[in-house]
Amino acid sequence: MHLLSIDSLSDDQIATILDEGERWFSYNRQPRRNDHRLDGLTIVNAFFENSTRTLLSFEIAANRLGAQVVTMQVEHSSIKKGETLEDTARTLNAMRPDILVIRHSVSGAPASVAAIMDCPVINAGDGVGEHPTQALLDAATIRQHFGRIEGLKIAVCGDLKHSRVARSNALLLKRLGADLRMAGPESLIPSSMEAMQIDEAVEGADVVMMLRVQRERLEEDLGDAPGEYLSRYGLTEDRFAQTAEGAVVMHPGPINRGVEIEGSLADHPTRSLIVRQVEMGVAVRMACLDLLTASRLN
Amino acid sequence: MHLLSIDSLSDDQIATILDEGERWFSYNRQPRRNDHRLDGLTIVNAFFENSTRTLLSFEIAANRLGAQVVTMQVEHSSIKKGETLEDTARTLNAMRPDILVIRHSVSGAPASVAAIMDCPVINAGDGVGEHPTQALLDAATIRQHFGRIEGLKIAVCGDLKHSRVARSNALLLKRLGADLRMAGPESLIPSSMEAMQIDEAVEGADVVMMLRVQRERLEEDLGDAPGEYLSRYGLTEDRFAQTAEGAVVMHPGPINRGVEIEGSLADHPTRSLIVRQVEMGVAVRMACLDLLTASRLN
Amino acid sequence: MHLLSIDSLSDDQIATILDEGERWFSYNRQPRRNDHRLDGLTIVNAFFENSTRTLLSFEIAANRLGAQVVTMQVEHSSIKKGETLEDTARTLNAMRPDILVIRHSVSGAPASVAAIMDCPVINAGDGVGEHPTQALLDAATIRQHFGRIEGLKIAVCGDLKHSRVARSNALLLKRLGADLRMAGPESLIPSSMEAMQIDEAVEGADVVMMLRVQRERLEEDLGDAPGEYLSRYGLTEDRFAQTAEGAVVMHPGPINRGVEIEGSLADHPTRSLIVRQVEMGVAVRMACLDLLTASRLN
Repeated sequence: MHLLSIDSLSDDQIATILDEGERWFSYNRQPRRNDHRLDGLTIVNAFFENSTRTLLSFEIAANRLGAQVVTMQVEHSSIKKGETLEDTARTLNAMRPDILVIRHSVSGAPASVAAIMDCPVINAGDGVGEHPTQALLDAATIRQHFGRIEGLKIAVCGDLKHSRVARSNALLLKRLGADLRMAGPESLIPSSMEAMQIDEAVEGADVVMMLRVQRERLEEDLGDAPGEYLSRYGLTEDRFAQTAEGAVVMHPGPINRGVEIEGSLADHPTRSLIVRQVEMGVAVRMACLDLLTASRLN
Repeated sequence: MHLLSIDSLSDDQIATILDEGERWFSYNRQPRRNDHRLDGLTIVNAFFENSTRTLLSFEIAANRLGAQVVTMQVEHSSIKKGETLEDTARTLNAMRPDILVIRHSVSGAPASVAAIMDCPVINAGDGVGEHPTQALLDAATIRQHFGRIEGLKIAVCGDLKHSRVARSNALLLKRLGADLRMAGPESLIPSSMEAMQIDEAVEGADVVMMLRVQRERLEEDLGDAPGEYLSRYGLTEDRFAQTAEGAVVMHPGPINRGVEIEGSLADHPTRSLIVRQVEMGVAVRMACLDLLTASRLN
Repeated sequence: MHLLSIDSLSDDQIATILDEGERWFSYNRQPRRNDHRLDGLTIVNAFFENSTRTLLSFEIAANRLGAQVVTMQVEHSSIKKGETLEDTARTLNAMRPDILVIRHSVSGAPASVAAIMDCPVINAGDGVGEHPTQALLDAATIRQHFGRIEGLKIAVCGDLKHSRVARSNALLLKRLGADLRMAGPESLIPSSMEAMQIDEAVEGADVVMMLRVQRERLEEDLGDAPGEYLSRYGLTEDRFAQTAEGAVVMHPGPINRGVEIEGSLADHPTRSLIVRQVEMGVAVRMACLDLLTASRLN
């Protein structure tokens, strides 16, 4: 089995990943971690697009389960020598990894690669496609905090058109019974999507999930003056005051302080779950690696 | 002992590497691999020239034997700060690796480094010099497929002048008793080499080993129009029809589809050994690492 | 506890690191190294400034103690996406490393990061700040060679203004009782520092520690003609002849042969400790990693 998109997961698998993710979260807080269940297995991280946090997160997750981890980064790739993605996949497959984790700037690239691989493939972000492990870690973080996801009012705000994080989260959180509200600048909302104004989305919300806006888009697509994005589409203290009691702020990172979110909210000691998301990220990826290799070995 | 060139190996050592390579090939197909014979040893990969497949192949090979693997890539190197190669070698040596794997764009660089190191050095490709582990994995792939190398008609076709793969393969396959035929564009044949036309070389051949042509050379050295290289010097279906019954196609990769080889031949389900070569690559490198560390520890 | 500067270490801790460093030095010369005391711990190397030898040294040191090692390099960092250093630190901290090793081009960056991290932080070089593990390995090398540091005449020569190596060494060696002499081009001496002419500094010295001069500074700051730096400020055979009997040459590397040091002195079989410094580097870093994790686990 592969982990390419939220829809590729059964309800049971999602439940297992969230449960196990929470368990690994506690495990990682121990002073020593001596789990070796992936001993003798090779995890290959094929990152065709730069990433710090996602790559580190997968590397640490795989190490903590005792796997052998090998990372290939795009700038060293023979892609540059004109090799097709399919030929690269055949090459990687011939090295007999036990899991391939792939990030690629082209939507659908992980699925094309998975069609060739004999081992499970995890999509670690593909173009404007999906980023399923991010959605899973977000769901696990919400569930850990609130004890449930069903019935929560969750606002996802920002560049909905280009965000694979928004796409995967919308699919997963809706499936888990959340009351979803999408909001963003008009020019950054896909035509097929029902969206609202940010003030409407945030009102009474239990969770406000802000998306990163590409700085390049601020000027090009939005003709934005400095600070304008924050006041029009970002999460300010004023807007956050309109949320439900006990509401929390989330963000997949890295954050642009003062652009899509006010710095004081990002740093809020009890209302911000942003750092918690990163911690849950390692844990949920451990759960994913474990689930996928178990499905392969049994 | 070092593994710098084909001539640096005794007949016995070559036989051991091919035998052990085949054994590791089967081993790697197991669901778990728990060999730890290089536990406690440090393998340093010093890659002064970019490479995806060769670096990954060595990293995975070393990991599968339980070694500690550290990789240094050129763009992070103090070479750029004006350090001489010899001073870099002295530095690496002082860190007491148990094997140094080196790729370098200058022919002879691995030998210069080996003269300084106290540990075995493996040449993973040096300029237009040699690439002995590629030749060994090619020989192991051929032997696994045909059960022998002696007496086989093997055509090596392409840019013979700049190919270290061609050089190492010619030395090794001749030594193992193959009937070698070299072919390529006239301007890409070393003056000292006896070569023939590709049609002549391919006729009745058991193995056709196509070399990668640098796209830059197509225009610069050959004044080549698009598609012209394939029809004049590449492996087309028509040419392949002239080979012996049961003939196979090989290529060190990455391949330029439609340039030196027709895509349908590269993908041929029974006649193409190209993906098999990659798989054998990890296995043969495990054999090399094992042989060289054993020679050091005994 | 962190290892950010020489002053952050107690006398006892310095003594422990030097003692243990010498012990690991011998240990690393064994054919196999099977220490696993950091098994189950995660070491993250966050290098925001390129480095070959220091990064390799830390990676090998951590591997030799059985730790899981993950390396993040600047060019893949979300720093480029505009994330603040503090946010990067919060992200790294959330991944729950057991030690963070950081190199950064801004002085004080490791201290800012350490203020956020829950685990020990090692400064692997910060701007024109400090490089404490380099000073520790230098001290260990001197002590191993002479059996003591107290009372030795040690000349530190070169670009004192920009050298974090000089700064950390001056602090440490003075504290250990050495008779320190600093020398360098007038324009490269901090106004607060008492320095002398190189000929004066070298006369009767037991140790001459030459600093690397940035090639860019030669022209820009010094208006230096080729070879002029060596004759005016570098270590020539003539100058070395004025040192004490049994004097040794040191250099943190990478060296510029013929610029700050004559090649024949760098290579001197008995008087040069330059390669020994690199070897001691791995050993002293093992001691530091061990000390810091022990302080955390107990």
